[in-house]
Amino acid sequence: MRKIIIGVMGPGANATETDLQNAYKLGNLIAQSGWVLLTGGRNAGVMDAASKGAKAANGLTIGILPTNDTSAVSNAVDIAIVTDMGNGRNNINVLSSNVVIACGMGAGTASEIALALKNHKKVILLTNHPESKVFFQSLSEDSILIANTPAAAIEIVKEVLSHY
Amino acid sequence: MRKIIIGVMGPGANATETDLQNAYKLGNLIAQSGWVLLTGGRNAGVMDAASKGAKAANGLTIGILPTNDTSAVSNAVDIAIVTDMGNGRNNINVLSSNVVIACGMGAGTASEIALALKNHKKVILLTNHPESKVFFQSLSEDSILIANTPAAAIEIVKEVLSHY
Amino acid sequence: MRKIIIGVMGPGANATETDLQNAYKLGNLIAQSGWVLLTGGRNAGVMDAASKGAKAANGLTIGILPTNDTSAVSNAVDIAIVTDMGNGRNNINVLSSNVVIACGMGAGTASEIALALKNHKKVILLTNHPESKVFFQSLSEDSILIANTPAAAIEIVKEVLSHY
Amino acid sequence: MRKIIIGVMGPGANATETDLQNAYKLGNLIAQSGWVLLTGGRNAGVMDAASKGAKAANGLTIGILPTNDTSAVSNAVDIAIVTDMGNGRNNINVLSSNVVIACGMGAGTASEIALALKNHKKVILLTNHPESKVFFQSLSEDSILIANTPAAAIEIVKEVLSHY
Repeated sequence: MRKIIIGVMGPGANATETDLQNAYKLGNLIAQSGWVLLTGGRNAGVMDAASKGAKAANGLTIGILPTNDTSAVSNAVDIAIVTDMGNGRNNINVLSSNVVIACGMGAGTASEIALALKNHKKVILLTNHPESKVFFQSLSEDSILIANTPAAAIEIVKEVLSHY
Repeated sequence: MRKIIIGVMGPGANATETDLQNAYKLGNLIAQSGWVLLTGGRNAGVMDAASKGAKAANGLTIGILPTNDTSAVSNAVDIAIVTDMGNGRNNINVLSSNVVIACGMGAGTASEIALALKNHKKVILLTNHPESKVFFQSLSEDSILIANTPAAAIEIVKEVLSHY
Repeated sequence: MRKIIIGVMGPGANATETDLQNAYKLGNLIAQSGWVLLTGGRNAGVMDAASKGAKAANGLTIGILPTNDTSAVSNAVDIAIVTDMGNGRNNINVLSSNVVIACGMGAGTASEIALALKNHKKVILLTNHPESKVFFQSLSEDSILIANTPAAAIEIVKEVLSHY
Repeated sequence: MRKIIIGVMGPGANATETDLQNAYKLGNLIAQSGWVLLTGGRNAGVMDAASKGAKAANGLTIGILPTNDTSAVSNAVDIAIVTDMGNGRNNINVLSSNVVIACGMGAGTASEIALALKNHKKVILLTNHPESKVFFQSLSEDSILIANTPAAAIEIVKEVLSHY
């Protein structure tokens, strides 16, 4: 009865409007697909938007918080995991996700993509940031998958899960 | 919409028959109370028994795994959080729980009780181990609460939550 | 050429005058014995006193900080390891120590003793807190060793190291 | 009396011959400069080569191990910090370093560079991997510094430290 968990990673305060729209849509489609959404849990950026999208489709949302309490948690997070580990929690984010989707780009997101690759996870990039596609594909051709829309990302997730 | 999480901590391989029965009942009552159960997630001892009890009442179960994958997860865990942190994950167990119940005793359980106290959490002891009651009450009279049965532990949880 | 590391764990703000004197003496004797001192690194209580004692004997001192920077480090720490893990760093403290000495008692110290036992480390208790001796010996008769003075603790360390 | 710590991050088993030569030289020059070397501590690749180079110049070497014991530590590590955190220890590597030098490239190294940027650390890239320069400079123009030789990297470290 263990649930499939899809991680959506992306910028907090520096998320673009497109990132936020994509994140909301990703969360929404993840919930519609019957999967659990996992994010970094804070009340900001991609984490918050994806969680809101999932709740709008009655999904279940997990937030892996960097802090030692829940004061900064997104209102759309159902299950708050409190790590008190700062950015060290990024490794937990990716280890706990069956598949990781990177929505937008920044240093924190890049660390999660790299940690996901190091832990042999598949990562779907949904970003307008061309250097990141080139770079991460140079690290691992097989594990980095490119999507141009949230719907395309979800199709790739389904394909990846079918090989489990 | 954030859910209340009750942590049940206790021995793995060294759990006694009484610990296992208490853990199952605790998980069952936690689920019946509408709370989420959090354990250390492994397929052993109190973690497994509590998760099974919660699932028997259609509850939601979280397991915070010490390992880097889910190969040792209890079948009764819905949401596996993979930390790859060994016993370092014990701090996450208690930080993520609104209230902690210690069911049985051992070195790992003792570390969770102590970390819970350090993090200003209330801890309910349900154990036949008299030295542990004396010791932990000597550390914090206010935060250590004693229960003699699973049902009594649940009543104390309700009392603690009513002061939030 | 790897160095032997002796961990001294004890209260910060709540350390007693006796704890501080014992910690200073422990640090001093550890340095005189040619070992490296490891503490929780903060500028408070047993951590600070032990580090000062070690520096007075020209020892090398490591501090495993809970914070994300070095602003709260003891002046007597040579090597600051910055974890940003709060009390989660307690597991690293004990894993990195060949032998652990608990000097004084409190919730944080208790968590370190329990984690040390869980990780199969020997722990020397130097404390006036009688309940802790009874409790931790009930968890592990073999791994908990009692010392009444810093000098006695150092003798026990030598005995333990001779069996490595 | 706190020591300056320079972190050298790079691949383990996948390090190239050039990476290994650069790492040895970096460790050697770090020790000659009076700084402490910090690596991921394992007996492989850049970690091991840098540590050996530092010891050849009588430097002090710290290894932040991912494992729960010291069985895989480099022989050239003086101070083994045992984290039992797998790749989660990468955040500790960069937080504990005054300046980070990336020597070579791979998923683990990329995670350390990204975590260093997230934690507002300066990172010096010494690598033939052109995509990584472009990518990480796109994330942070100010914090990513490029060196073509170990000696040039050391000059940059000196420049960065002069602004502390």
